[in-house]
Amino acid sequence: ADQATAEAVSAREARLTKPSGSLGRLEDLTAWLAAWQGRNPPRLDRPEILVFAANHGVTAQGVSAYPSEVTAQMVANFAAGGAAINQLACLSGAALRITSLSLDTPTADFTKKPAMDETAFLDAVGAGYDEVSDDADLVVLGEMGIGNTTAAAALSAALFGGGGRFAGTGTGIDDQGLARKRAAIEKALERHKDALGDPLRAAACVGGRELAAILGACLAARHKHIPVLIDGIVSTAAVAPLKLLREDSLDHARVGHLSAEAGHGLLLDELGMTPLLDLGLRLGEGSGAAVALLVLRAALACHTGMATFEEAQISDKSS
Amino acid sequence: ADQATAEAVSAREARLTKPSGSLGRLEDLTAWLAAWQGRNPPRLDRPEILVFAANHGVTAQGVSAYPSEVTAQMVANFAAGGAAINQLACLSGAALRITSLSLDTPTADFTKKPAMDETAFLDAVGAGYDEVSDDADLVVLGEMGIGNTTAAAALSAALFGGGGRFAGTGTGIDDQGLARKRAAIEKALERHKDALGDPLRAAACVGGRELAAILGACLAARHKHIPVLIDGIVSTAAVAPLKLLREDSLDHARVGHLSAEAGHGLLLDELGMTPLLDLGLRLGEGSGAAVALLVLRAALACHTGMATFEEAQISDKSS
Repeated sequence: ADQATAEAVSAREARLTKPSGSLGRLEDLTAWLAAWQGRNPPRLDRPEILVFAANHGVTAQGVSAYPSEVTAQMVANFAAGGAAINQLACLSGAALRITSLSLDTPTADFTKKPAMDETAFLDAVGAGYDEVSDDADLVVLGEMGIGNTTAAAALSAALFGGGGRFAGTGTGIDDQGLARKRAAIEKALERHKDALGDPLRAAACVGGRELAAILGACLAARHKHIPVLIDGIVSTAAVAPLKLLREDSLDHARVGHLSAEAGHGLLLDELGMTPLLDLGLRLGEGSGAAVALLVLRAALACHTGMATFEEAQISDKSS
Repeated sequence: ADQATAEAVSAREARLTKPSGSLGRLEDLTAWLAAWQGRNPPRLDRPEILVFAANHGVTAQGVSAYPSEVTAQMVANFAAGGAAINQLACLSGAALRITSLSLDTPTADFTKKPAMDETAFLDAVGAGYDEVSDDADLVVLGEMGIGNTTAAAALSAALFGGGGRFAGTGTGIDDQGLARKRAAIEKALERHKDALGDPLRAAACVGGRELAAILGACLAARHKHIPVLIDGIVSTAAVAPLKLLREDSLDHARVGHLSAEAGHGLLLDELGMTPLLDLGLRLGEGSGAAVALLVLRAALACHTGMATFEEAQISDKSS
């Protein structure tokens, strides 16, 4: 992050026609955007929403309320413009790009063997890395994949401990399904326990292709100095291995929205990250982060458009 | 509220391509907009932000960090387009209208006598009532007035008890100033104690012209079936008397944002209202509610733009 740019932004912020600090997190967001973009003022001319889709062998364990073919059906819905993320991308002025990752070849059922071998994992990481445009000024990371909250919960537990505690009802599974989901996670953690000490091996063993792609895209954004908005539990779990590899590796990222999926809050506590919004969404697709992009636009509009005290000839504080 | 319209909206919501309920509060907001507008789908073609400005005699007690002339200076800044609310109105596609209420004649210092007599109070209520356009489809209620967090805290305590507990640092007063603010509130509560049992007399005695105008605008919106977004502690305190007069009188209103001003959360607890956003703003002007208008736009975009399961040919739940 560019400290000089951040300080220039703060200096302007202090002269705008409002009590100091009275725009709260909007001020922090402007400073964060500027620091990572390395320019003052920051811009949101080319935000992009990247949605990665993949299928999961662990659905064989009865962990999801929907069948696996819904992943490809939703990808078709994205292409046709009919999903929530299409509407939110349009409203927030972001480009939307969908990347399908071998939908016809689900990962292996990780209760039985590693979800991906090293080649498959790195292919997916690379696919995500390559999707980030050089000239993007913000990247929103989202996903679609029936069964992927099971992978996210398993990966979270692999990284931070606690067995099935990150499991939730996902797209709306019943109590028996939730019990199967917890059992699958615990079985996977036991089966792969020798590999889970390495965050990247954990991501290969109990993650998924779309999670690996999100990790790759997050790395590419870091390399290109592009700030990132993370979405819900799946996209947060996807980037969590980076935090264990290097403490400051998610400093270029903010979490857009706290998912109603129970494990997301637990995972954010582990990562020490505070979401911008809490509106009860639990949809994925990048939807919560896309709503948060509207908040970034509000921050930027205030910072760039407001008059200074001098310009508006407004009296100083009396005290 | 129109129950049949709300049910029609819920029926469509259930058919959209997402797990049931997975858009969280966005779904509630769409249903609320539709019910009050009495149309399906609801619209946000003509939202308006009404900002009422006034001055306060209680500033003589040294309760604010800024001098009273800043109220008129900020009104000039609104007119010139330089304030935060100008940028947020533009971003959220809302008309912005500023109403100055006798800025050269502050209310009386309510530590010594009632802020307004009945005529002045009703004039201000009427001014607010008249500002709501017949064809508005949403009204955001905001304010500007040096000293008005003292009035808001005094009125909140008059309605719900607790002396100075609603007082905060406002535009940024120091500890001594906060002590003066609390003392002024307690003196006012004691002086006017015989009048405070009547919510409207309380609003006249320890409120302010802009608070009275917001109350009037909230009533007008109710009469015209227009949903309302309330902003921070001042606009919430302004409408609070209505809740005591009739339990359901704020059902057409939502609170856009939880102010960082400490008393706002306490006041919302008393009213049983949950803010949409919590971004640390404490600026007033309607700014927090204007950011929340972006969330309403997100809700509406999803509801009106998404495909149904049938349209997208997506499989039903397996369970």
